[in-house]
Amino acid sequence: MTTSGEEGACHLGIRLKRLGINSRSDHIIYMREDCAVCRAEGFSAQARVRVDLGDRFIIATVHHVSTDLLSDGEASLSERAWALLGASEGDCISLSHPALLESLRKVRGKIYGRAFEGDDLSIIVRDLTEGRYSDVETAAFITACSARDLDGAERIALTKAMVDVGDRLEWPRTPVVDKHCIGGLPGNRTTPIVVAIVAANGLLMPKTSSRAITSPAGTADTMEVLTKVDLDLAAIRRVVESEGACLAWGGAVRLSPADDLLIRIERALDIDSDGQLVASVLSKKIAAGATHLVLDIPYGPTAKVRSLEAAEKLKASLLGVAAAFGLKAQAVLSDGTEPVGRGIGPALEARDVLSVLRCEQDAPEDLRDRAITLAGCLLEMAGCVDAGAGAACATATLDDGRAFKKFEAICMAQGGLAEPPVVKHRRAVEAAKGGRVVRIDNRRIAQVAKLLGAPDAKAAGVLMRVCVGDSVEAGALLYEMHAETTGELAYALAYVDQNPDIIAVEVN
Amino acid sequence: MTTSGEEGACHLGIRLKRLGINSRSDHIIYMREDCAVCRAEGFSAQARVRVDLGDRFIIATVHHVSTDLLSDGEASLSERAWALLGASEGDCISLSHPALLESLRKVRGKIYGRAFEGDDLSIIVRDLTEGRYSDVETAAFITACSARDLDGAERIALTKAMVDVGDRLEWPRTPVVDKHCIGGLPGNRTTPIVVAIVAANGLLMPKTSSRAITSPAGTADTMEVLTKVDLDLAAIRRVVESEGACLAWGGAVRLSPADDLLIRIERALDIDSDGQLVASVLSKKIAAGATHLVLDIPYGPTAKVRSLEAAEKLKASLLGVAAAFGLKAQAVLSDGTEPVGRGIGPALEARDVLSVLRCEQDAPEDLRDRAITLAGCLLEMAGCVDAGAGAACATATLDDGRAFKKFEAICMAQGGLAEPPVVKHRRAVEAAKGGRVVRIDNRRIAQVAKLLGAPDAKAAGVLMRVCVGDSVEAGALLYEMHAETTGELAYALAYVDQNPDIIAVEVN
Repeated sequence: MTTSGEEGACHLGIRLKRLGINSRSDHIIYMREDCAVCRAEGFSAQARVRVDLGDRFIIATVHHVSTDLLSDGEASLSERAWALLGASEGDCISLSHPALLESLRKVRGKIYGRAFEGDDLSIIVRDLTEGRYSDVETAAFITACSARDLDGAERIALTKAMVDVGDRLEWPRTPVVDKHCIGGLPGNRTTPIVVAIVAANGLLMPKTSSRAITSPAGTADTMEVLTKVDLDLAAIRRVVESEGACLAWGGAVRLSPADDLLIRIERALDIDSDGQLVASVLSKKIAAGATHLVLDIPYGPTAKVRSLEAAEKLKASLLGVAAAFGLKAQAVLSDGTEPVGRGIGPALEARDVLSVLRCEQDAPEDLRDRAITLAGCLLEMAGCVDAGAGAACATATLDDGRAFKKFEAICMAQGGLAEPPVVKHRRAVEAAKGGRVVRIDNRRIAQVAKLLGAPDAKAAGVLMRVCVGDSVEAGALLYEMHAETTGELAYALAYVDQNPDIIAVEVN
Repeated sequence: MTTSGEEGACHLGIRLKRLGINSRSDHIIYMREDCAVCRAEGFSAQARVRVDLGDRFIIATVHHVSTDLLSDGEASLSERAWALLGASEGDCISLSHPALLESLRKVRGKIYGRAFEGDDLSIIVRDLTEGRYSDVETAAFITACSARDLDGAERIALTKAMVDVGDRLEWPRTPVVDKHCIGGLPGNRTTPIVVAIVAANGLLMPKTSSRAITSPAGTADTMEVLTKVDLDLAAIRRVVESEGACLAWGGAVRLSPADDLLIRIERALDIDSDGQLVASVLSKKIAAGATHLVLDIPYGPTAKVRSLEAAEKLKASLLGVAAAFGLKAQAVLSDGTEPVGRGIGPALEARDVLSVLRCEQDAPEDLRDRAITLAGCLLEMAGCVDAGAGAACATATLDDGRAFKKFEAICMAQGGLAEPPVVKHRRAVEAAKGGRVVRIDNRRIAQVAKLLGAPDAKAAGVLMRVCVGDSVEAGALLYEMHAETTGELAYALAYVDQNPDIIAVEVN
């Protein structure tokens, strides 16, 4: 705290006043346009400035204030910036021009077709992690890497750069197994089931998951409706020590923190390119200390990966980059023609997961089968069972209740097991005519779930009532829309009205 | 204005309170996180919402406020959004989810290599102009068009789209002549001189110019230190009617308004690709009603266009697209190896322009010669003089004072002629050793001028004291740095210290 005697020391800086504005984007510093510092330093609106407080600093974008919200010599910060600096009301900050962002030249080079070389990507990722990139600059980096796809060497360099800027976990024993799905297939929520099965068989699986990038739910979003996932490293270690596994959100532990920054912008743009995908997936696994990894790559005309050929190509890149880091990986190319299970959205998918783990009569079989395949693969890779015996072992672990018991124990260790919430607002979507369901558009059904509010609205989403191949009567229920608010329900309804063929029914 | 009796009508909307925050970026709406509308509609921070007031609307990004700056039922808008909606304190706005930005799918397609087709670019440009694109989305569009350069058909489509969303001027007589420099050459400020010469010869030249994109000054920035350039259409028409010409900022008249939105982000990214350049240049000229256009394309190792080959390619694209719109164009490929004139920065360039127009003894000859070439070209194209006689006519017009008289008259009609401002803070940069000046780096000398504050700080910039080929002694003055603030001077000095070879001197 400053005392009046110390105030003189603030003459070159300015004093913080909390306005409490949360931008969730670039850090923002609010200053009077006519304040002495802005005039002396030439800080115009949208300028990027370095803000120092104690031994911490951030780079922020200037927004000017023309009213008496702030007086001369006062400034405010957006909430995330305030927290990162550990600021208190009245603290004295100092402002300066940030160093020129030299690494942006490399991004421009990439845009015009020059490959990243040497430590280009290390420097870019470090600058990004230190908050030197504005959202607009991050968007240019992401777009450049999508339009000019990264080659093998660039993918390895980006993966290494992303590992290097974050924490790196070590575990007391090996093997440490992990699992990842490339995504794009709504409802394909196998991770909690796989973790429960392999941990019940004694394998170490300290699973950290992402939130959704462009989908209606990520594993972390789904697990969050069942238990606490926002665990720090000490908590993760406690849970893993006691249960051999966890199901935590990865973002809280600074594994590949650059990835979270990239994901925020990728999500806004709905872009997720192969090179960044490989680096995103593998940097998290390597940083998390995995030694054995199984990858699920669903492919289909409306999945993220469109064809078998593309799936093979992605598989080769993932296995190649993994090998460069000594990570043993296998990939399962799976059917990606329609959603998995019934629910699409965090809580609705959590219901499917519980249903499979509890071996309920009407548990979705496709979700169960996929989880068994992936868990079986890990059990074999890690040497728990002989080659070919993995699926049978996984099935037995589910059927005799050991998997659910392990799942409960993991959740209890993370803070308790809750039942998924349900929504107030529902609407049925019915078949316009009778016939056979011939196609389900994964992307557009996922869009409906997102318009309904998923993943931010945990209970929102879509509940599927038919599969490809089913025969339906006119007026039969195809799917239910679940929303937490009427605004979102109306918005999704408008989209559904414009897209009557999301589930295509053809007369026999 | 609302009265207390009308307040009930606001129950579905919220009331505006002015906070006076100027973001100069995306429109922002400030709302309490816990307000009824945010909860009912699921508006999280960073959500994009449609804001309606009367018959106007904008799309804004949500920033949440957690303090009592706003009460439940209150919201605020960033200043530009406030102005666009014509808002007053206490006005009642309504909020809704904006329509899905379908055109962003086309941008994603482009990122992955699909060309824009049909009306793709019309829809993108319309959405952009209506403010439906966030800065991050605009950055992705710009980056995609740079990484996947636009082909001929796309360039024509983008040009047409940019013309169509703006105003289009018509003039009482033809020919209507125009001039454009591709840029990248500091100090190449020929436009005011060319306009004065051709208008003095009776040609109609209603010149509208841009502000700087990535350079230390655009023609509008330079003219702004001499006269008022922010003219509306009626004012432009008055000036042109009385003087046959104007030197106005184009942004005020909604000629190709999309261009200004793109330029803001291009400037932040320091990107300016061929396809967008062609559409940007020609859309403004076509919308301004030009019939004859001369283009200056300087090329050199550190100019925007790096080689004669690239200059020829760009020339072919510009002339091809111009022809598609019936615009007669010629291009002059000019020497781009070193800055033109002495000043770099708005006021310093204005001094050079005045010096040439006033035929002062020490007026920069290179600037004069270039202006004569371009003006001569227009005089010939428009049929004022026979082929080959343009340069002589232009020279005579300068030398007998008619050009300066016309320039004065244009400035007086626009609001007066001021002398350029001078700075308080200067610093000399001297030769470390004697020898011959063999190279001047246009990009880095422009960077110095920008670090000194140009173009926002009008008087800031660089004053060149040597040209390539000059012999200098050790300690001789190479250039002066001019700054309005000590902060900017210090910042530029640090850059100059790290870059001692911006002007390369080699021992004879």
